[in-house]
Amino acid sequence: MVIKLERSKILKEFGLKLVEQAKRGKNPKFSFPLRNLSNIVYDQKSKTLKLGDKVGTREFFNVAHAKKFLQTVEVASVIKKELLDTSKHSSLRDVFYMVKRTIPGTKVDLVEEQTESDKCIEDLEVITGLFREQLNVNADKKGSVVGNVVIEDSGDTIDWGKLGSGGWSIPSNVEEIKLKKVNADYVLYMEKAAVWERLNEDKYWKKHNCILIASQGQTTRGIRRLLQRFYDEFKLPIYVLCDGDIYGAYIYSVIKYGSIALAHASERLTIPSVRYVGITMDDVEKYQLQKHFIKLKEADYARIKQVSEYEWFKDNKEWQRQFKKMKEYKAKVEIQSLSSKGISFISETYLPEKIKKREFLD
Amino acid sequence: MVIKLERSKILKEFGLKLVEQAKRGKNPKFSFPLRNLSNIVYDQKSKTLKLGDKVGTREFFNVAHAKKFLQTVEVASVIKKELLDTSKHSSLRDVFYMVKRTIPGTKVDLVEEQTESDKCIEDLEVITGLFREQLNVNADKKGSVVGNVVIEDSGDTIDWGKLGSGGWSIPSNVEEIKLKKVNADYVLYMEKAAVWERLNEDKYWKKHNCILIASQGQTTRGIRRLLQRFYDEFKLPIYVLCDGDIYGAYIYSVIKYGSIALAHASERLTIPSVRYVGITMDDVEKYQLQKHFIKLKEADYARIKQVSEYEWFKDNKEWQRQFKKMKEYKAKVEIQSLSSKGISFISETYLPEKIKKREFLD
Repeated sequence: MVIKLERSKILKEFGLKLVEQAKRGKNPKFSFPLRNLSNIVYDQKSKTLKLGDKVGTREFFNVAHAKKFLQTVEVASVIKKELLDTSKHSSLRDVFYMVKRTIPGTKVDLVEEQTESDKCIEDLEVITGLFREQLNVNADKKGSVVGNVVIEDSGDTIDWGKLGSGGWSIPSNVEEIKLKKVNADYVLYMEKAAVWERLNEDKYWKKHNCILIASQGQTTRGIRRLLQRFYDEFKLPIYVLCDGDIYGAYIYSVIKYGSIALAHASERLTIPSVRYVGITMDDVEKYQLQKHFIKLKEADYARIKQVSEYEWFKDNKEWQRQFKKMKEYKAKVEIQSLSSKGISFISETYLPEKIKKREFLD
Repeated sequence: MVIKLERSKILKEFGLKLVEQAKRGKNPKFSFPLRNLSNIVYDQKSKTLKLGDKVGTREFFNVAHAKKFLQTVEVASVIKKELLDTSKHSSLRDVFYMVKRTIPGTKVDLVEEQTESDKCIEDLEVITGLFREQLNVNADKKGSVVGNVVIEDSGDTIDWGKLGSGGWSIPSNVEEIKLKKVNADYVLYMEKAAVWERLNEDKYWKKHNCILIASQGQTTRGIRRLLQRFYDEFKLPIYVLCDGDIYGAYIYSVIKYGSIALAHASERLTIPSVRYVGITMDDVEKYQLQKHFIKLKEADYARIKQVSEYEWFKDNKEWQRQFKKMKEYKAKVEIQSLSSKGISFISETYLPEKIKKREFLD
């Protein structure tokens, strides 16, 4: 973990370097790996999306660069002074409003759209080697967690095993949380909060000694970092429970291999060892769930084609077999269709059997 | 609070009555208040949306009713046996899968779409006088809470004042939670989780002795019930913090007056005394936030027209003045624009001043 003082210092040095260049009569400039599509590569070795070797530069005395140069420096300054030095955190939206001011002596606003300040923050991530969260810029807050875990956070000691039906609400930023006591054999992450409530009510995490994490839809950066910390710091296996459809496959693949939008952060956000424990087309046959098939729409077929051609899926025989079956059945199936076998079928049969027999997709 | 045994008994009696009718050679039937638009009225006295006097009937021996009759009885049976009698809870989606089966001796499915089982649950709400949550059918899980409150839930004692940066994750169903110790002067509810994180980091709830609740977007039923319980059981004032736009006004109005979709549940879900502490057009002038105006789009104008004509807004002078100003400025403004005055301006100036001077909209 990079401590706060160091982080502030890294930004200070970024600024000092520019000042020195100016003092030496040079054109102040800085460089960073480009984040556009042409510089995103799938690294076969690490099995993650990464940035390639192409480098971009911002120069102060360059009509095409001057505004972006100024924006980046101003964002860096706001992050250092308003966030890191005061130990405060803010959202991307707040940073936008903090840097949105008129450039003195002009009628020009430093930034007009949030995308401009967002890009500066991404540039600063690759320039400093720090994560957005380590720059105290938070992502979305979403999700819940329960399990035999004790953490320390903002001066409070919190036992995730004693939080009733609600669980702990996962903050947008989990960088500074101390995972003090972790007693679990694995982490089960699911996309649906309703499934999480089912498993929590059935005390699945107590019976099977695991940690239950749910988002609601997309996996936030906070949740991805939390999963990653359990893998990095405690070597816990991470299992992903999704619907039996192409969107479930994609949610799983983002956690495992990364995403194009966040390729510059792959190293820290991906977990190559994660395993898929969601519904497969084989489960449909095994548990006779055909009755609960939901017919695919045109958009679904297009997405199957797209996802199945991704580099990290295209040579994966098991997943290709799944994609093929989805197309043959012309259908998808939801996790909750398991409720047709009984309300607690998922916690008493489906998950214990699947995990015991290690019937994962990889 | 209606206890669990009673609730199961209410459903049992609903079924027994139908059996008796059949035994006496009568056509089994049941009645309930209609929930369609023509039977939803705005009650000037209670200032909530309510159901009118129109009544619907479902008869077993009636070709037009038979399937709906059967669906309602089956849903009632599943709720009694699978949920209430086992103390388990489920989502609407799970109930759908639990009742989706082929009618014996036919090739007809009892329900084909979730809307069918959803409607049965709403019918059962008005038939039994019980809430969906009291029938153990949960709504969405969303939102976080912190404050000087101790609750008891599922055997755990949880102190909302000791949950770090995350807070307690609000479950979809708060009916069975015991609010054991509540030490707060008011509840502040906000639509944005990022604003909640700002206020929590600034320990606003400690300094101003209040409870902070956030959803992310729409106010879930769980959150509405939680707000309502603080009002009912502890007489706490509820303040709603939203963006300065028509959507913020609507979020506020749903909590205060109810919504068309849930008119049958208004009595329990609305809080007529709730007050609006969100950004107004006057705040824009007071704090010179014009720079941060976001231009209205066509859909925004249409929504302003629609909302301003709602019965509960149309005679409200203060709100009409706001709607007029929105149209004059051709703009809306976000809560987070306050960050342009400093990251903690909202917690150190905006909210304390506004609440102290009681500058609410009603």
